[in-house]
Amino acid sequence: MAPRKGELTRNHILQTARGVLVTKGFHNTSINDILVATGVKKGNLYYYFSSKEELGLAVLEDAMEEFFTFLNNALHGDDPIAKILNSCDAILQELKKRNFVGGCLFGNTALEMSDSNENFSRVIRQVFSIWTDQLAGLLAEAREEGGLPSAIPDRLLAKTIVATIEGGIMMARVNKDEEDLADCLRALRVMLGR
Amino acid sequence: MAPRKGELTRNHILQTARGVLVTKGFHNTSINDILVATGVKKGNLYYYFSSKEELGLAVLEDAMEEFFTFLNNALHGDDPIAKILNSCDAILQELKKRNFVGGCLFGNTALEMSDSNENFSRVIRQVFSIWTDQLAGLLAEAREEGGLPSAIPDRLLAKTIVATIEGGIMMARVNKDEEDLADCLRALRVMLGR
Repeated sequence: MAPRKGELTRNHILQTARGVLVTKGFHNTSINDILVATGVKKGNLYYYFSSKEELGLAVLEDAMEEFFTFLNNALHGDDPIAKILNSCDAILQELKKRNFVGGCLFGNTALEMSDSNENFSRVIRQVFSIWTDQLAGLLAEAREEGGLPSAIPDRLLAKTIVATIEGGIMMARVNKDEEDLADCLRALRVMLGR
Repeated sequence: MAPRKGELTRNHILQTARGVLVTKGFHNTSINDILVATGVKKGNLYYYFSSKEELGLAVLEDAMEEFFTFLNNALHGDDPIAKILNSCDAILQELKKRNFVGGCLFGNTALEMSDSNENFSRVIRQVFSIWTDQLAGLLAEAREEGGLPSAIPDRLLAKTIVATIEGGIMMARVNKDEEDLADCLRALRVMLGR
């Protein structure tokens, strides 16, 4: 069944608002920015989302769903370590496509909102924790198969991979040089014994 | 010679504004927030800083100077690797003292402003690049002395340390759990052969 018109409008608002929010940040984005970017009338926007916060939260939840679909598709390879490295590389390629503009919506929101908005924090926490669990699971698999030489415990290594990618995106954005993230991924590769 | 009154006022504005900016972010901070926090009159504030941007930039430059003084003091230890690990631990302790509120001013500004303000980006770039150079120098020293087992080239490893700390601060803030950064530092410790 084709999606209904209301669903299409809602998705259009979510996708477009995500682009605005990832570049401008939540506080610096006005409802008017969203109206201009989406071409939607004010009354129509408020029909779908009762406040800027509700919209921001829906954007985050939608982006989380898309991120894990993306990540699951990127987790291909002959063994668990290859899967991890391929997924990291897929993240780099995706950011390169966008010239690193905006960077990572979750990382940006984590730093902008984690002291002030518990609802936003909850979604970001979920993103980082599911991602970390997934990596830790693959590392444990690799270790069982004898394919992980690292002396770092799986869970610590999984957190370090997430932290390195988020920090690497930060450096790449501020230096306007994708090689910063690429270098971090090269270091991860050695760390994981490849 | 004791600092003059003007210098004291300027320093008071810089220190207080830093506290506001690190928690609220640049866009979300108004001139009025700064006036309320500092207790300084509008005319007096504009006497020292002609705009919010000029103030923000001065805050960043002041924080950079303080960060490198802090870092140099923290780089103590019997060998280069001990120096690196002690400086990482000093950063963790400093953030713990502040309950991680605000996190890292440079990281926050990198994600909030790097697409939109070249002056701010320039300062953050300088922070990351001096810090990375310093770490790479110590890693090279350690390697010369035979004290670095890592197969990761010095410069990549130095970038990875900076990225891991910045990403670890992000995770600790969003999870409201300092153990996230502590875990990343534990992983770094193993990575550096300790």
